[in-house]
Amino acid sequence: MLDRHPLAPISLRRILAALQAGTSTPAGEISAAKGRIATGDGPVRAFLRLAPEASLADAATAKGPLAGIAIGVKDIYDTFDMATEHGSPIYRDHRPVTDAALVSLARHAGAAIIGKTTTTEFASLDPTPTRNPRHLDHTPGGSSAGSAAAVAAGMVPLAFGSQTGGSVIRPASFCGVAGFKPSFRLLPTVGMKTFAYTLDTAGLFAARVEDLNLAASLITNRIFAESDRADAWGLTVGLYRSSVDGAVDEAMTVAVDEAGRLFEASGARLIDVSEPAALSAAREAHASVEGFEAVLALSGEYRQHRQQLGPKVGAILDQGAAIEVSAYDRARRTARIGRKAASELFETVDVLIAPSALGPAPASLRSTGDAQMNKLWTLTGNPVVTVPGFATRSGLPLGVSVIARFGCDAKALSAAALLQRLICA
Amino acid sequence: MLDRHPLAPISLRRILAALQAGTSTPAGEISAAKGRIATGDGPVRAFLRLAPEASLADAATAKGPLAGIAIGVKDIYDTFDMATEHGSPIYRDHRPVTDAALVSLARHAGAAIIGKTTTTEFASLDPTPTRNPRHLDHTPGGSSAGSAAAVAAGMVPLAFGSQTGGSVIRPASFCGVAGFKPSFRLLPTVGMKTFAYTLDTAGLFAARVEDLNLAASLITNRIFAESDRADAWGLTVGLYRSSVDGAVDEAMTVAVDEAGRLFEASGARLIDVSEPAALSAAREAHASVEGFEAVLALSGEYRQHRQQLGPKVGAILDQGAAIEVSAYDRARRTARIGRKAASELFETVDVLIAPSALGPAPASLRSTGDAQMNKLWTLTGNPVVTVPGFATRSGLPLGVSVIARFGCDAKALSAAALLQRLICA
Repeated sequence: MLDRHPLAPISLRRILAALQAGTSTPAGEISAAKGRIATGDGPVRAFLRLAPEASLADAATAKGPLAGIAIGVKDIYDTFDMATEHGSPIYRDHRPVTDAALVSLARHAGAAIIGKTTTTEFASLDPTPTRNPRHLDHTPGGSSAGSAAAVAAGMVPLAFGSQTGGSVIRPASFCGVAGFKPSFRLLPTVGMKTFAYTLDTAGLFAARVEDLNLAASLITNRIFAESDRADAWGLTVGLYRSSVDGAVDEAMTVAVDEAGRLFEASGARLIDVSEPAALSAAREAHASVEGFEAVLALSGEYRQHRQQLGPKVGAILDQGAAIEVSAYDRARRTARIGRKAASELFETVDVLIAPSALGPAPASLRSTGDAQMNKLWTLTGNPVVTVPGFATRSGLPLGVSVIARFGCDAKALSAAALLQRLICA
Repeated sequence: MLDRHPLAPISLRRILAALQAGTSTPAGEISAAKGRIATGDGPVRAFLRLAPEASLADAATAKGPLAGIAIGVKDIYDTFDMATEHGSPIYRDHRPVTDAALVSLARHAGAAIIGKTTTTEFASLDPTPTRNPRHLDHTPGGSSAGSAAAVAAGMVPLAFGSQTGGSVIRPASFCGVAGFKPSFRLLPTVGMKTFAYTLDTAGLFAARVEDLNLAASLITNRIFAESDRADAWGLTVGLYRSSVDGAVDEAMTVAVDEAGRLFEASGARLIDVSEPAALSAAREAHASVEGFEAVLALSGEYRQHRQQLGPKVGAILDQGAAIEVSAYDRARRTARIGRKAASELFETVDVLIAPSALGPAPASLRSTGDAQMNKLWTLTGNPVVTVPGFATRSGLPLGVSVIARFGCDAKALSAAALLQRLICA
């Protein structure tokens, strides 16, 4: 039997309910978040800097559906009132003219952008100083390390991250929070530092899936909060068997199987889905797409500041610079074929479930872990939600991914919210 | 019979040949370009600022296939050594940390980024101070006004622009230069200010089509320079009859018909192609896609600096802010259907020809003209090359667009290069 870990304590939904009921005020919530960061961030180091007092004072009187909600923003997003360094010495003290689109949308909805969270350099692989709040000697994952850790440690109810390989789903899984990588382009990426333009996806972290659902709806004016499913009747859930499952550790395999059993016990039809060859090929193509685009996107940094780049991102760019145009074009074709194959999978299932990482957070601060389980769905653009709750015997979280057809984000979120309740019943 | 206008005098191909033959040096070419700007830009006002001496000194000793080529860059692209203002007071004196991807690629190929050219604010519709070198009382078009004019006036052999509606093809047509709007995403747009992320396309201006062909090949390491066609045998050319042709003026209609006759006389099969309903609908959808995305992309500017925005871009954003998510989603679906319909057109023709603008450059400096003839192909992402050479009785240029299937940029460029030779034989 699998253990459970406690969910992150600060729930967006509960805060919004308290605000609506009048038992809390925006100013009080923002001040409480500041207090939690002041007391909690010492060992975790999720935050790089906090918003100036003037911005928080403005936010305390802001109107809108997210008024009173303190958001931690990965330092890959531009903010007009705080430095934006992209995790790189090349951008030391860099101050953008305006906010990134997603940040601006959140402010417009009344939210308080309370501070900037750590990112690996250019959202790549060189670790940040952030530690996993569930176990300080384990990696929080990357690249959105600070945002995942800030939510896991109960400092903020919502945080923004980004994913080019596995940078939202993997840290969410390692830190035991809910993470949402929406369909490609559902959330705007303007003002988010580009790494690979056909892959970069803005994403969200919150305590539980229902919080993500609410945040996505309020930020985008879309309705993701489908009427809550009482059970899984009528749902067909596919247990996704990929060509790289051999690398998944036993506890994670048990977690995904258990998720399948919970869905089944709740009325779902559970079937096995074997990875089509086109999707194994697409996973393989990810590195060429990413590397080639990164060398273009970061051409200025790479050509003019190579010596300042961290070892891992530097190596990725060196490899990217060796990729021929023809190899990139082939990889893009493989990706296109993969996207079609991914859509076809959902002709027989409503959602797929799969490991969110190879296993729990590795006991190291020198690596952010492996994105093997995530990069296929980043490449195909499918929405993925990772559901927290399962844990190893030693209490390390094991996230389970719920994947839906491109554009069917509401379906992914509602199935994942159900799974969340089934795990944490 | 149609008149001809003289092509712009400074040809990239001829400069590269002289450099290769050793009859010219990179330092000499850069210095010559500076001289031409100093003497020619007074009345035209294509340039906002020139590169610092240190950058030009570096460029004079640079190696690479574009060494010695002076490029004018629309002020919508980041440059590390010059302010980048996006045509907006909001970005007064703004200095980016690094170059935009396309700028960096050009520098890496040895080019001299000689200066920044005017852009309408955020590449929208408020006119710049630039005048049309063919007739100073006529608009040069927009939004890439400075880049089109800088090439037309013979100041530089190559310039960078961008197109979200008709911002490359229209000013190229009005100024009588060759313009290339490649397939969507062929040239990287990272570091180019975003207006609408599913539309924004980087593009090129040069004296004649063969120059564009060469520039695109050398910048991207792709081979666009198909072996030159001696004639049009085996080519099927479609005369595209759109639902908005009623707005095209007579001289332009004659120009496109004449282009068709020239292709036919050179051996092509010429057929009429009527616009399918899906493409008329797609053209209509452009405004909703653009407006909705612009409000997201420029959310910081719009929410925080509304009063500083020019009247036309301000109005577009106001209209965009009123577009419902559901209307945007419908417009995106219409665009997707349009893209398929556009691909199907090319099952029966190799290329289409169509007007590059409604007519010659209007006699006004208060408007940049109409993008009616361009925005469909921006939305569908098809490559378009505008071919200069035809002119009205009064010597105003009339560009003819050559359009090919998505991804078939080489085909568009080689057919357009042939048409260029047929027009200017």
